[in-house]
Amino acid sequence: MYRSHTNGELRLSHQQETVTLAGWVQKIRDKGFMIWVDLRDRYGITQLIFDEERTPATVMEKAKSLGREFVIQIKGKVIERESKNANIPTGEIEILVEELEVLNKALVPPFTIEDKTDGGEDLRMKYRYLDIRRNPVKNKLVFRHKVTMEVRNFLSNQNFVEVETPYLIKSTPEGARDFVVPSRMNEGQFYALPQSPQTFKQLLMVGGMDKYFQIVKCFRDEDLRADRQPEFTQIDCEMAFVEQEDILDIFENLTRHLLKEINGVKVEKFPRMTYDDAMRKYGNDKPDIRFGMEFGELNEVTKHKDFKIFNEADLVVGIAVPDGAKYSRKEIDKLIDWVKRPQVGALGMVYAKYNEDGTFKSSVDKFYEEEDLKQWAEKTNAKPGDLICVLSGEKNKVRAQLSALRMEMAERLGLRKANEFAPLWVVDFPLLEWDEETERYHAMHHPFTSPKVEDIPLLATAPGKVKANAYDLVLNGNEIGGGSIRIHDKETQATMFDYLGFSEEEAKAQFGFLMDAFQYGAPPHGGLAFGLDRLVAILGGQETIRDFIAFPKNNAGRDVMIDAPAKIDEEQLKELHLKVELE
Amino acid sequence: MYRSHTNGELRLSHQQETVTLAGWVQKIRDKGFMIWVDLRDRYGITQLIFDEERTPATVMEKAKSLGREFVIQIKGKVIERESKNANIPTGEIEILVEELEVLNKALVPPFTIEDKTDGGEDLRMKYRYLDIRRNPVKNKLVFRHKVTMEVRNFLSNQNFVEVETPYLIKSTPEGARDFVVPSRMNEGQFYALPQSPQTFKQLLMVGGMDKYFQIVKCFRDEDLRADRQPEFTQIDCEMAFVEQEDILDIFENLTRHLLKEINGVKVEKFPRMTYDDAMRKYGNDKPDIRFGMEFGELNEVTKHKDFKIFNEADLVVGIAVPDGAKYSRKEIDKLIDWVKRPQVGALGMVYAKYNEDGTFKSSVDKFYEEEDLKQWAEKTNAKPGDLICVLSGEKNKVRAQLSALRMEMAERLGLRKANEFAPLWVVDFPLLEWDEETERYHAMHHPFTSPKVEDIPLLATAPGKVKANAYDLVLNGNEIGGGSIRIHDKETQATMFDYLGFSEEEAKAQFGFLMDAFQYGAPPHGGLAFGLDRLVAILGGQETIRDFIAFPKNNAGRDVMIDAPAKIDEEQLKELHLKVELE
Repeated sequence: MYRSHTNGELRLSHQQETVTLAGWVQKIRDKGFMIWVDLRDRYGITQLIFDEERTPATVMEKAKSLGREFVIQIKGKVIERESKNANIPTGEIEILVEELEVLNKALVPPFTIEDKTDGGEDLRMKYRYLDIRRNPVKNKLVFRHKVTMEVRNFLSNQNFVEVETPYLIKSTPEGARDFVVPSRMNEGQFYALPQSPQTFKQLLMVGGMDKYFQIVKCFRDEDLRADRQPEFTQIDCEMAFVEQEDILDIFENLTRHLLKEINGVKVEKFPRMTYDDAMRKYGNDKPDIRFGMEFGELNEVTKHKDFKIFNEADLVVGIAVPDGAKYSRKEIDKLIDWVKRPQVGALGMVYAKYNEDGTFKSSVDKFYEEEDLKQWAEKTNAKPGDLICVLSGEKNKVRAQLSALRMEMAERLGLRKANEFAPLWVVDFPLLEWDEETERYHAMHHPFTSPKVEDIPLLATAPGKVKANAYDLVLNGNEIGGGSIRIHDKETQATMFDYLGFSEEEAKAQFGFLMDAFQYGAPPHGGLAFGLDRLVAILGGQETIRDFIAFPKNNAGRDVMIDAPAKIDEEQLKELHLKVELE
Repeated sequence: MYRSHTNGELRLSHQQETVTLAGWVQKIRDKGFMIWVDLRDRYGITQLIFDEERTPATVMEKAKSLGREFVIQIKGKVIERESKNANIPTGEIEILVEELEVLNKALVPPFTIEDKTDGGEDLRMKYRYLDIRRNPVKNKLVFRHKVTMEVRNFLSNQNFVEVETPYLIKSTPEGARDFVVPSRMNEGQFYALPQSPQTFKQLLMVGGMDKYFQIVKCFRDEDLRADRQPEFTQIDCEMAFVEQEDILDIFENLTRHLLKEINGVKVEKFPRMTYDDAMRKYGNDKPDIRFGMEFGELNEVTKHKDFKIFNEADLVVGIAVPDGAKYSRKEIDKLIDWVKRPQVGALGMVYAKYNEDGTFKSSVDKFYEEEDLKQWAEKTNAKPGDLICVLSGEKNKVRAQLSALRMEMAERLGLRKANEFAPLWVVDFPLLEWDEETERYHAMHHPFTSPKVEDIPLLATAPGKVKANAYDLVLNGNEIGGGSIRIHDKETQATMFDYLGFSEEEAKAQFGFLMDAFQYGAPPHGGLAFGLDRLVAILGGQETIRDFIAFPKNNAGRDVMIDAPAKIDEEQLKELHLKVELE
């Protein structure tokens, strides 16, 4: 027994008890005749006192040799503190030390182990084991555990069964790139790591396991953008004998349960919005609805006024920025620069101040009268004092640009409150999306998603208009989950593969087992997957996922702590029948 | 809503209710004017009745087209059965069908979907999704889920935190072979899949996360023996500020909790046995102690009697097979053939019948008197009626052989009862074991295991005698868990790597991050890992793990259902800077 109590446990009620504690030296205050040490572990901090008059001389001596992050064990008596610290739960007591053992020394850590550290991102990642000692990181990992326990118990209580699906599966070129794993025993052949357990969970449905879930690692060999990880965790779910409504219902309840248990927030029925509405009102399929600034389409009220740019635009669309009428010319110019940044890509921005006194002042006063601008205000729901920002151009592009502006303004205005939660179902996604690069349609969700029955005839004539039984759960402007009703018959699945450009042979080679399975009595089924890393981050009031992952990789996919990936032995390569060919 | 109830739910109390059910057609009995269908889902079977006089003609017609494993949905009224079936919970009722919809047709399945199927192993694996429909397989997967939920809730309630460690790590040549994953973004470099999260959990201890667990997939590219899987699941645990006793205590409680909650079996304190005792008494470091037949060493009482084989043997050792004295000469000859099989490898077997009347009859009566054989009986704890079986030879070999015989006899005598549970801690394992092939010592557990402090001086003089703070949890003759107290200082770890034949550079390249971590205040720590697949199988009263895994691989490491591993595109290989070189 290295300790009788943790460092977060002792109170005044323990006074006069002799206790054994262990932990790390957080802080030392050495007054010569008296030394105070803050002893830290996962549970808190307890103050130790070494006192020349009351502590054995040898112990006093040893205490003087301590350094930050030394691991020590002490025995001593719980006494009342003279100057109490109301900020920590153990702040009313301290331990008068009688015995001290140094369990392990420590070099001076490369950054301070404090809530606010002086360590940069790179250093913290290289010494991640030290970073985890810091409360902000440690607490996030404990928080993640709490969330997953809630998820598991909720789903298990609803009769879901967690089934482990395999990690060594088969490569399929659809979607992102697979990580592959050479097989030593099967020469020249490779396993692939799953991008998701999609086909296996569908096979479980065919197998009658009608409520499945799994919290599972998935892998995508993508060029990493900020805040993407090559390995990430999903809460993966599938149900049989269900319609879309049944699935939304269960997972809305799960999310509501989490918000209540984890965040103490009660949320009523989640609003729903079609994909088309989300794009029209927010320019985005994952709108943050914690705040307004809904889009107002202005084509009707801007045309035929000699302003060529608007007249020729596919879409003219604006938002009303609350209290923006007071912005100076300089501030507005900066805003225009912001929308013209390559990351946003607008060519310019038209604005109209809706002054407090009800008058208007716009950057296009040459073309538009007060009456016109009043109509802009109506369409964008602007109030006196607001600034109407208008972008124009090709529909999809301009929506993305205005959405970026909307989010930026919300951020600046403090409207994206971390402790406010606005979930939203976005439904009726298109089945297919056009890919400029390959010049063909791709599955928007994945190739197993069922088209809406009534839209199937459109597949031949207007594939882009076919809607799917697909849905996303959006929380505070982030997609935290998504899913669909699946195809469950061989013919529809074959048709779908055909539309997606698979030859019959390719479809058979890659998904033959699934189409075979559909012939042996596949039930109607559907499901959903949550991105756990993001879900946890958002419930934790943050948008970056990295600190909610114990050992994340950097943007080059490297683990800088263990220095992976790395070269492997020639011998090992030979056993795998492989040769590296560098360019 | 595809169903108002499941097929395991309806009782007499539901009489006259109109219900909607969905599921698979298990069985059809067509009497022409009356058709009964057993409708199956995950929850049970409900009998449907189609009756010419009471069922609409179109529905009757449709019912005649049904086949086994069709997926159907019906609406009907719950009525009392005329001939009740006491074997199933729904056996008192049936559903008089009013509406029938075929949700999906089914080909005739390649084997019967019954508890006892006509499908062979290969066919069942290829159509695993059909196999999972069968109760024996389905129930095992649900059972596995139940066990993991109990484990997680138990550990979580004890303040353990489940932390996900990475799957894309770094290859280390120690132990079994790693599966590797080529990195596209880091040319010529590879990740490895973890054989266990060993180093990461130790880093979590350095990080202050003093109670860690994780239910996690691990990977070993071994030549597969029967009942080994290239990917397997561990309950992985680690604790800081603990001694061996603390760890045994927690995980004994966990196991006791599982036996109680899952099996309804109460077990008192688990017995403990040193590795040396286990080898001496059972010839095995994972003895099945549900039954006796302990080894009796006979060197003392067999020597100096002119029987050269025993006189020259390193070890002469026997067991008393209960009630074996009645075996015929032929039966005993068969037993001798059995121990001479190459899998066991004994050169022969000496036996002595301890007859019910107290006399002895042995195969070596030429050399040994009644008085001698009485001593054999004493040493092997034989009673009148038993058969004493004696093997001799090199100590380690003969122990393994006699252990195999002991297990075989127990099996034949029905002493290995599936519903009886005999856990056992085996402690004080050797730190090192001699490897004949490489002619050097290997770590018996792994290179991070701490030697017993008092044995450290022996490292230089008699490394084989050094004991470790390492322990295994054995259940019914199977190792279900194992662990150790770890080294937590850089010097000892460096010494250990040196003994294991790592050069300083190799140690640094592979485990530098861990030794670095030990310099920044590593606490004393240790842990344990359970093999979940085996644990679940044994709690389920079985010893083969395959059916407790949803999608297992065969002995060649192949998933015959999805046909993986498989070849990948040249394009994909090129992106990975790889070339396949077949022999």
